[in-house]
Amino acid sequence: MDMIKVSANSRTSAVAGAIAGVIREHKRAEVQAIGAGAVNQAVKALVLATSYLKNDGINVVCVPEFVDVEIMDANNENPAVRTAIRLVIEPR
Amino acid sequence: MDMIKVSANSRTSAVAGAIAGVIREHKRAEVQAIGAGAVNQAVKALVLATSYLKNDGINVVCVPEFVDVEIMDANNENPAVRTAIRLVIEPR
Repeated sequence: MDMIKVSANSRTSAVAGAIAGVIREHKRAEVQAIGAGAVNQAVKALVLATSYLKNDGINVVCVPEFVDVEIMDANNENPAVRTAIRLVIEPR
Repeated sequence: MDMIKVSANSRTSAVAGAIAGVIREHKRAEVQAIGAGAVNQAVKALVLATSYLKNDGINVVCVPEFVDVEIMDANNENPAVRTAIRLVIEPR
């Protein structure tokens, strides 16, 4: 199962569609966001996805957690550790 | 039950303590945030509160939703409608 990575510039409807698709296929989705703008987009996408899935009779809930991730610079070098928010989404 | 209102300047540990206290007392908490900075603080506080409550044997999950709220200006006049994120938090 792939992690859904969200940035501050991600379109909420596209992320929401990805969440809904992964839940339908795998019964679990993980969304990762670093920074306030990205976390906000991720949560908005989750609201939309929750509504899409409710139409299919699937009620999902979310558990957020911190996770340390390694970020590379523009040259794919100099890894730095950042704290991301991971939203774990599952049927209730 | 009071709504827990979070701003971009809220301390996550204080909000986390409030969430945990309300869950222990009422088995349900609602957290409201407007704007990316506030949503980020709310989600970080929820991660901390989830960890506090797990130590008490309480596993909580979250369902985010949009809610329209009326915001007043500095003179408590000229109400404007803004879309807030509300995190509904309950034992799993």
